Amino acid sequence: MTPESLMRRAIALSMEKMQSGSGGPFGAVIARNGEVVAEGWNQVTSSADPTAHAEVVAIRRACQALGRFDLRDCEIFTSCEPCPMCLGAIYWARLGRIWYANDRRDAAAIGFDDDLLYREIPLPLTERSLPTQRLLADEARAAFDAWMSKPDKVAY
Amino acid sequence: MTPESLMRRAIALSMEKMQSGSGGPFGAVIARNGEVVAEGWNQVTSSADPTAHAEVVAIRRACQALGRFDLRDCEIFTSCEPCPMCLGAIYWARLGRIWYANDRRDAAAIGFDDDLLYREIPLPLTERSLPTQRLLADEARAAFDAWMSKPDKVAY
Repeated sequence: MTPESLMRRAIALSMEKMQSGSGGPFGAVIARNGEVVAEGWNQVTSSADPTAHAEVVAIRRACQALGRFDLRDCEIFTSCEPCPMCLGAIYWARLGRIWYANDRRDAAAIGFDDDLLYREIPLPLTERSLPTQRLLADEARAAFDAWMSKPDKVAY
Repeated sequence: MTPESLMRRAIALSMEKMQSGSGGPFGAVIARNGEVVAEGWNQVTSSADPTAHAEVVAIRRACQALGRFDLRDCEIFTSCEPCPMCLGAIYWARLGRIWYANDRRDAAAIGFDDDLLYREIPLPLTERSLPTQRLLADEARAAFDAWMSKPDKVAY
């Protein structure tokens, strides 16, 4: 399939699943060599899961389909520019390329906070609107040291 | 439970679950009025899910436990400062406060890319290391328009 065909599928999902009550108007497709590996769509309200954005759902399904946590030979087609949560998920999944259609300003215009998140996340912790407090740093360190010295760890 | 007790539980999860092979050394607890609502720990490698960070897992479980996608009356205790993906998830879940122990520099020192992601995400799309391309913006717009005029939509 061409990039245009894959994006049209993501756009079709954004419309169909939203109309059937799954959640917001967002669809995503993950492809490898032009073939669909997995599809996702927003399920925040229908599954009571604020992390169930189209891209996160598609990533989870693609990893299940391929049996691995690394999608570096795949690309994602998403009907809207990923929010910071989804962008982080895309980096962690090592996806090779993002194709998007609507952008964060389009999303803000229909009531989604992507743009706010893009402004908040780079701020120093003390300047964010979300109160954030450090606690027991000295006690948490041991697990990090144990990870470093763990002989059979699976790095990711 | 006090904040210190809740953080000690998150830290204990970060050690125990890492040692039993679940994934990286990260634990999280979501609490309401000092009572635990849900616990999470990193399951990236054991579940082949790059989104299964401790905070995301805890958020999903807390939402399942409470039957809603909004955790605004809850706080999260995480053994490490959230990565941008998890921070995004925390904002979407409307959590009221973040408590953390290790920070992003501690995470970078043991091989986790949180700090890289914090540097990438604020960049303009054209300056990121991840290729990002716009496609078919004109065709994607219709689903956003349909969302705006959908009479029975559940906003989130």
